[in-house]
Amino acid sequence: MKLSEEKVYRFSELANKVKASMIRELLKYANLPGAISFGGGTPDPETFPREELAQLAAEVIQKEYKYTLQYATTEGDPELVKQIIHLIKRVYDVDGVEPENVLITAGSQQALELIGKVLLDKDDYVIVGDPEYLGALGAFRMRDPRFLVVRFEDDGPDINQVESYLKKLDASGQIHRLKFLYLVSNFQNPSGITTSLEKRKALVELAEKYDFLIVEDDPYGALRFEGEMLPPLLKFGGTQRVILLNTFSKILCPGLRIGVVVADKTIIRKLVLVKQSTDLCGPALNMRLTARYLERYDILQQIKPAIELYRRKRDVMLDALKEYFGDVPGAKWTKPEGGLFVWVTLPEGYDTMEMFKFAEERKVFYIPGQAFRPFDEPSSSMRMSFCLPPFEKIVEGVRKLKEAFLAYKAYKGLR
Amino acid sequence: MKLSEEKVYRFSELANKVKASMIRELLKYANLPGAISFGGGTPDPETFPREELAQLAAEVIQKEYKYTLQYATTEGDPELVKQIIHLIKRVYDVDGVEPENVLITAGSQQALELIGKVLLDKDDYVIVGDPEYLGALGAFRMRDPRFLVVRFEDDGPDINQVESYLKKLDASGQIHRLKFLYLVSNFQNPSGITTSLEKRKALVELAEKYDFLIVEDDPYGALRFEGEMLPPLLKFGGTQRVILLNTFSKILCPGLRIGVVVADKTIIRKLVLVKQSTDLCGPALNMRLTARYLERYDILQQIKPAIELYRRKRDVMLDALKEYFGDVPGAKWTKPEGGLFVWVTLPEGYDTMEMFKFAEERKVFYIPGQAFRPFDEPSSSMRMSFCLPPFEKIVEGVRKLKEAFLAYKAYKGLR
Repeated sequence: MKLSEEKVYRFSELANKVKASMIRELLKYANLPGAISFGGGTPDPETFPREELAQLAAEVIQKEYKYTLQYATTEGDPELVKQIIHLIKRVYDVDGVEPENVLITAGSQQALELIGKVLLDKDDYVIVGDPEYLGALGAFRMRDPRFLVVRFEDDGPDINQVESYLKKLDASGQIHRLKFLYLVSNFQNPSGITTSLEKRKALVELAEKYDFLIVEDDPYGALRFEGEMLPPLLKFGGTQRVILLNTFSKILCPGLRIGVVVADKTIIRKLVLVKQSTDLCGPALNMRLTARYLERYDILQQIKPAIELYRRKRDVMLDALKEYFGDVPGAKWTKPEGGLFVWVTLPEGYDTMEMFKFAEERKVFYIPGQAFRPFDEPSSSMRMSFCLPPFEKIVEGVRKLKEAFLAYKAYKGLR
Repeated sequence: MKLSEEKVYRFSELANKVKASMIRELLKYANLPGAISFGGGTPDPETFPREELAQLAAEVIQKEYKYTLQYATTEGDPELVKQIIHLIKRVYDVDGVEPENVLITAGSQQALELIGKVLLDKDDYVIVGDPEYLGALGAFRMRDPRFLVVRFEDDGPDINQVESYLKKLDASGQIHRLKFLYLVSNFQNPSGITTSLEKRKALVELAEKYDFLIVEDDPYGALRFEGEMLPPLLKFGGTQRVILLNTFSKILCPGLRIGVVVADKTIIRKLVLVKQSTDLCGPALNMRLTARYLERYDILQQIKPAIELYRRKRDVMLDALKEYFGDVPGAKWTKPEGGLFVWVTLPEGYDTMEMFKFAEERKVFYIPGQAFRPFDEPSSSMRMSFCLPPFEKIVEGVRKLKEAFLAYKAYKGLR
């Protein structure tokens, strides 16, 4: 077979535009011995119920092989859909979800991509946050929309800014091109920020007034350490206004790739048709395994030790930040009530992308805020994930980060 | 939660264009008691190695949970890639495939969709067959290309017709808009036709002369009952000309959703970047399970009883067709040397879509040829899958089909 690197292919515009993941490049050395990584957002594998899943996997293959080893329907396993409807009722206190309101996807990422396909044409508008979840931006970008970027405040998106976009679009007759607002409502990735009750209500009201959809993504909601859970935007807007995304990646494990869309039946039908041409159907084995797990175990109980572990790790990180960065004027960080991330912001003038190499030299890794900015602008913030490093490494990592900060400060002559 | 069917959403052009699967609609009643279905192309679940997979699944979850339950890399499990490289060498006698030439996908369907994303812009040209695999047409259609449709002859695509398209495109300066020719090279779905050695070589020569790619899809090649396996087009064109797709759906089981792309490294890199925004990564569990299966068992040996089963079913179907349709002037059918499908063509003037309701009344099901025509035109052919019904049902089904044929003939006053 002839192999060559030289041939030039006539790729599509999409392929010519798509960029390598900055995160991946940055974290290339984050797994080397001695490195401390606050980079990845992956859950701790010790929290996965491996014994239970191992036994159940053998069981569902032996006893239900006609289902588990065969093609599934595009909508997903009806047994899993049933379990998900129970879970949604329990977690969100949302009633009235019917099987036709649910689609099982290959993780939330596929849900995001299918939503892009079903709702977005080139140059349509989408409201996103600053910072925003990278994967969502990547999925939507494949459809060539225009991003309207909204500042994230301590309690969620800046509503005034949202409203000002809406008024402008309305005035210019372009409001029908606004398809949806995207929001990670709890413990946002990357900022850890939870959108307040008031802002949830305000966003739904604006969606009704200006007739657009809200895509509410909630992968972390069940990982709450303290405080009260807020009702999802879905609760206020219903499926006519809100498409809710969820995933088992954070509360069970990512390796099964099980995501969930809850939406109006009309929207689900479109998503199903497009999913059919996208991957025919999801893996029956993984869906049935998850269904039987949910049937036999109380996932909200089983996840409690993991939540406790993450809570303690967050506390260790917040304490270490206070110890090492408490004396840095202008430095601040979020205090998330759940999830996996703390968002650390350095004083103005600092660029966490520039600072990265000073951290890398000290074998400590984070994700520069720039990676989460829709237009790739410099940022003085960084995402620090506390879920993977052991306790003592969290402290050591923050200490080293302070060293990196000081070295960078000196190098740049910053004050 | 408010639920309503009434709201009108502003969907994308893609969503407004996508159609419900005709096959699904047609086969709605194919699983009812008493029905005999030649419709589905799904393998017989009794051929799946369920005991081996059950044991291995438990094993890889217990022992390799840090991998199997976690996020995977977008390229796919390196252990599986290693096994696939061995398998490609064994099955195709193709050397020189490196890990960077391989991408694991969610079945071949995802491979087709990613190829569409990476190569096709609106109005680009793609050469496809008549008839053609539906899933490929569906995946490519999402990118809005123009299909150049080539008649399938008994030994593969009509090369003269291919060449005439190429000359026309060349003359009009549009040849650079031709991105690829798509071909199921062995036991094509739906026709069962295998493209001859001469035509394989001719297609690769044309691809070199006119500088386009060939997407060679080979889900059925390993299901050969008799005759000699032909070298893949990849063998002649190398990865510079040919993108090879394969899948474990037919030789292991579909429920794991494991597809494979073998292509030039430059193309694989683009596919990986696009896959990242499409679903982040495939299910680590399924990939590692397949890898360990391939390591421990000889899949080409394990599949032999299934091949023998399908061969016998094919023989029963061919015999039944001879018995019941041998006296129908102008009726003919393919004699596939492998795969899952026989393609039956009725005399001119018959429309298998119209005839469908006569068959349905007799509880026998097939897929009308129209479903496989790129421009949805009427067809006198139909796809008859022999893989699922038991032996005696195959005979009974063909007998009933003859009744349906006669009833339709009388109704239409055909001769």
